[in-house]
Amino acid sequence: MSDKRIAVIGGTGDQGKGLALRWARAGFEIIIGSRDAARAVAAADAMRATLESNGSGSVRITGAANPEAAVSASIVVLTVPFAAQVGTLKEIRERLAPGSLLVDVTVPLEPAVGGKPTRTLGVWAGSAAEQCAELSPPGVEVVSAFHNVSADALADLEHEAECDILVCGDSKEAKARLRPLIAAIAGCRYVDGGPLANSRTVEAMTALLIGLNIRYKTHTGIRITGLKE
Amino acid sequence: MSDKRIAVIGGTGDQGKGLALRWARAGFEIIIGSRDAARAVAAADAMRATLESNGSGSVRITGAANPEAAVSASIVVLTVPFAAQVGTLKEIRERLAPGSLLVDVTVPLEPAVGGKPTRTLGVWAGSAAEQCAELSPPGVEVVSAFHNVSADALADLEHEAECDILVCGDSKEAKARLRPLIAAIAGCRYVDGGPLANSRTVEAMTALLIGLNIRYKTHTGIRITGLKE
Repeated sequence: MSDKRIAVIGGTGDQGKGLALRWARAGFEIIIGSRDAARAVAAADAMRATLESNGSGSVRITGAANPEAAVSASIVVLTVPFAAQVGTLKEIRERLAPGSLLVDVTVPLEPAVGGKPTRTLGVWAGSAAEQCAELSPPGVEVVSAFHNVSADALADLEHEAECDILVCGDSKEAKARLRPLIAAIAGCRYVDGGPLANSRTVEAMTALLIGLNIRYKTHTGIRITGLKE
Repeated sequence: MSDKRIAVIGGTGDQGKGLALRWARAGFEIIIGSRDAARAVAAADAMRATLESNGSGSVRITGAANPEAAVSASIVVLTVPFAAQVGTLKEIRERLAPGSLLVDVTVPLEPAVGGKPTRTLGVWAGSAAEQCAELSPPGVEVVSAFHNVSADALADLEHEAECDILVCGDSKEAKARLRPLIAAIAGCRYVDGGPLANSRTVEAMTALLIGLNIRYKTHTGIRITGLKE
């Protein structure tokens, strides 16, 4: 399997949809995963229609239940609400092929327990990404990324997304597998965010940005200044 | 007292020096505070010499022991290592005038207990800024800011500092008192970072940026994208 096939688990949510749209448009083959296969297929059909009416030509985007989506891709991107992270991982982990890359996008926002989206919950493992790694089978590499880029910015295909993507993980090679996926989103830039544990901070930054979005009535992202890459 | 007089407590350290240089050059009157008055005076003399040889004309920058520095300014900026934060606050808190603004720049980096500068310690109060607020007398407003701007960038007077300054605090008016101090640093921009508790994230971002500085051999800062201000 090549890294051109990406499963977006929870791909019927806003963050998953935005990423799937950008990647499908760039020529990646996308499988939308959902707990409900019919919802996944409907979401995939709607995205294909959006892209084709947008002049993107023929795009490859299909839908499936989460386990079927996970089994069929070498890069599996987890974009579910925090409250669904553990359950979804338990549902897909036996289906992940050795050598596949699991990309956690989960942010432990407080609404998982009825709180505010401008605040995060403490996670015993340290971060949602580290919790994801604890629940992943051997042979599957876990990295985290795409927390800070706004779903609205991703869905707005006419504009660049204007956000650096901090990629956290304990293997430099695993992180580098995301370079083509990030290069495929206009306005995004790959930044090596350090070890997986740094996801603690990158996840929390999402809540900070949500606060800025509310305060400034806009959608924000981040740039790291001073990098010469 | 006007907000043109700023005490920089711990102003013999890198972050304090960088801020003091920028503000003195912009016409603010600076009092460098240190536990050791003689060290504060020596640091102030060196900074004055740097600025005057740099063509900044006559600048007002003096040194004093921390309590004397704190009593004489309406804005007091705390730039000490985390291990010194509580002790310094106990030393100065009785001297802070009601109505003065206390600006906490402390980051709870792990070297306080012998660890890595790319990691932070957990603080019972939630953040160094909230710990500062717990130790502050009534009538003194506490905000936090300037965590993410690199001391190297501040000291490099020939270049812009290229960093947004996320200001956290529970009073919009108190936060706004920092606008002129931020506008005085070329390349910096005021961003309302939300409540003081958001300092948890902004402080942690400093450790993340230190990691990037090491990994990319540079000095980094942050920009929030998508703000229309």
